[in-house]
This record gives sequence, structure tokens and C-alpha cells, in this order.
Amino acid sequence: MVKMYCQSIEVSLGSGPDLCDITPQLKSAIRESGIKDGQLSAAIVGSTGSLTTIEYEPGVVEDLKRAINSLAPPGIDYAHEAAWHDGNGHSHVQAALLGPSIVLPIRNGSLRTGTWQQAVAINHDNHPRTRIVEVTIVGNG
Amino acid sequence: MVKMYCQSIEVSLGSGPDLCDITPQLKSAIRESGIKDGQLSAAIVGSTGSLTTIEYEPGVVEDLKRAINSLAPPGIDYAHEAAWHDGNGHSHVQAALLGPSIVLPIRNGSLRTGTWQQAVAINHDNHPRTRIVEVTIVGNG
Amino acid sequence: MVKMYCQSIEVSLGSGPDLCDITPQLKSAIRESGIKDGQLSAAIVGSTGSLTTIEYEPGVVEDLKRAINSLAPPGIDYAHEAAWHDGNGHSHVQAALLGPSIVLPIRNGSLRTGTWQQAVAINHDNHPRTRIVEVTIVGNG
Repeated sequence: MVKMYCQSIEVSLGSGPDLCDITPQLKSAIRESGIKDGQLSAAIVGSTGSLTTIEYEPGVVEDLKRAINSLAPPGIDYAHEAAWHDGNGHSHVQAALLGPSIVLPIRNGSLRTGTWQQAVAINHDNHPRTRIVEVTIVGNG
Repeated sequence: MVKMYCQSIEVSLGSGPDLCDITPQLKSAIRESGIKDGQLSAAIVGSTGSLTTIEYEPGVVEDLKRAINSLAPPGIDYAHEAAWHDGNGHSHVQAALLGPSIVLPIRNGSLRTGTWQQAVAINHDNHPRTRIVEVTIVGNG
Repeated sequence: MVKMYCQSIEVSLGSGPDLCDITPQLKSAIRESGIKDGQLSAAIVGSTGSLTTIEYEPGVVEDLKRAINSLAPPGIDYAHEAAWHDGNGHSHVQAALLGPSIVLPIRNGSLRTGTWQQAVAINHDNHPRTRIVEVTIVGNG
């Protein structure tokens, strides 16, 4: 019978783009859910955050930060800043392009991702933020 | 017990990149579903549309449109256009990079997004389009 | 009553960016699931792969490959390569920006996408790879 389990994860991140590995928290949520096969969806709360997967090692982290800042550079003019003066026009654009959510498979009670594939939460805002990631697990127990 | 509810949303959009806030329609679908906790997945129908979340205010909308046109500019050569002559090669590339779907959490009967985080449907095509967004809600009633 | 069905798809891809249409396999999984209305989530295993939807014709495929290589060009310096010397720093960045997962609707026993909208698996790695896509279907039978 299909069951559903929800959990809220909180992560502290530095000024954007900053990112952290949330795979341990996702694995813990799967264990607590008791769900063996199904899917885990994760969504970050707020319009200047995003989620994706990477090989979480310092080189890829640095390369991804640089690429994110190339997509929407911090130093140029943004219409958002002209109106709101909060200096984070680039943060909004970066987060929108990466997207707020991912869905990952659960098989035999485990997160079914690659050995060198970790789920990461990204803060794009121009100051440190505590970010909430909402996790919803659906599947057979 | 886990329930499922489907709804189809129709939105009219101008020549791409054009976008509109579909959060009110998603909230309405959640109310009609009677589902209190779970997840809402939304997918846009067609290969020149995409979905994401943003702070829906005119500045961010303008900034995002500009960034999308930088990712795949309308004025350059595309192999798609050489074969099909429909002038929307950039539309296909833009939509593929942003992606067709998002998944958002439902908690206590409400869409659990940030206060300034709205779900948006984007038309990338080079003429106005009526777009269909298919919404699927799964969770406990 | 809500049911759940899982399937693993295997695809062989050339050096990145290379992509293939996985729509036939998704449709086959839906038929085997017996699920009539709901959603299909798909996630690629490994940190140098991604999923999206496109109009699968040679022109768009060529345009998208070029755009992906513009996002993170193969020829420039990457911190990942300085540490690991495997020449695929760009592959990691490209895959992270596109994202590992999509969610598509199922209506009346069929995949509800546009007529010219196909689901594609992308290999970004710098050598041919056999890629696994994990499919999870949730809905009413």
C-alpha cells in the first residue's frame, strides 16, 4: 500500500552562490519513512534558493559557483535592484534558471543515486541564509 | 490513506519569453483536491514552454526574460530553423535548459512555498500561445 | 486506490553532450504499470547526466548540444580537473545546471506531453556511458 511521509530540513548557507550536501538528511528521512520503493521530492523554500545534484567535491563546488555567477553576474544592472535596492537581482535570476526542486528514486530502502552524486541545496542570495528544504516521500513500505 | 488528484490549467501567454504567475491556480487545485499533506507536480505541455519559481514582481520578470534570451539568443543561427523555417530555434533551446516541470510541497492544506516565491509558466515560442499545465497532487487527505 | 510502479531504463550514449529519446521506454513503463492517471518521475543516475524534454529532431538536438557546451565549455580550466585530471570538469557543471530529474503527467493511460515533446536523457561525460534512468509511476490504476 502506498504511503506518504513529509520532513522539513534546515540548512545554514553563506552568501551566494553557496551550497551544501543534503544527501545525509535525505537518507535519514528515507529511513524514518520506512518506505522501501518509491520517490523522494525535495523543494527549497524561497525564490533565491535552488536544488540540484553534483559530485560533491571542492573542485566541482568551485566550478559550479563560477558557472552560476556567469549565468547571471552579480555586478551588472538588474531591474529588480532598481526597484528594491537589495542588491540581489542576480540571485533571483540564478535561482529561477536552476529551479527549486528535484525528484530522486528510492529502491530497496535506499536513495538510488550514483556513488559520486550528491543532492545539494544552493543559496543564491547576497547574504547568509538559513534555508528550508521540504521533503516528501511517496512509495511502498 | 494516500489520494491522487489531477487538474489541467490553461494560460494565455504572449510571444516568448513571456511568463505568468500560476500560483493562484495551483492553490485552487490544492483546495479542490482536499489533500492536506503531500506534493504537487506541475508539467507544461509542449517543447517550447517551461516552469520554475520566482518572486513575481516586474523587475525580476524583466531580468529573467533578459537572462533567458542570453542563454539562447533569438537572432543567431539555429539548425532547427535551417530545416523548419519557423524562426523558433532559440525557443526550443531555452525551454530545454529551463525544464518542463517542478514539484512543490503541500503542508497543512497549503502550498508550502516562500512568501515571495511564485510558480510561473513560461512561453518561449516566437508567437503567443495558450499553454496547458498539467497538475498532479499526491498526498494524505 | 493509489498504486506505485518502478522501472529501470538503460541507455547507451556517446561522448557528451550526447542525448537520446527515452519516450518509448517511458510509455512502455506506463503500460506495464497499469496506472491510468497520475505522474511519472524520472531521474538519471550519476552526476554527469541530466534529463529534460525537447522536440526530438536533428536540428534541435544539434542546437541544444551547442548551447550546453556554451554553458560550460570543454576547453577551459576547471578546478575539478586540476584535482582529478579526468578532463570532465565541464560535464559536471553542465549536468548540474540542467538537473537530474523531470516529472511528467499521465492521463487516460498515456504520457500527457506535447505531440512534438519528447523526454531525453543526456550524457555530459567526456566518454561514452551506459546510463540508468530510474522511473517511478504513482497514480490510480
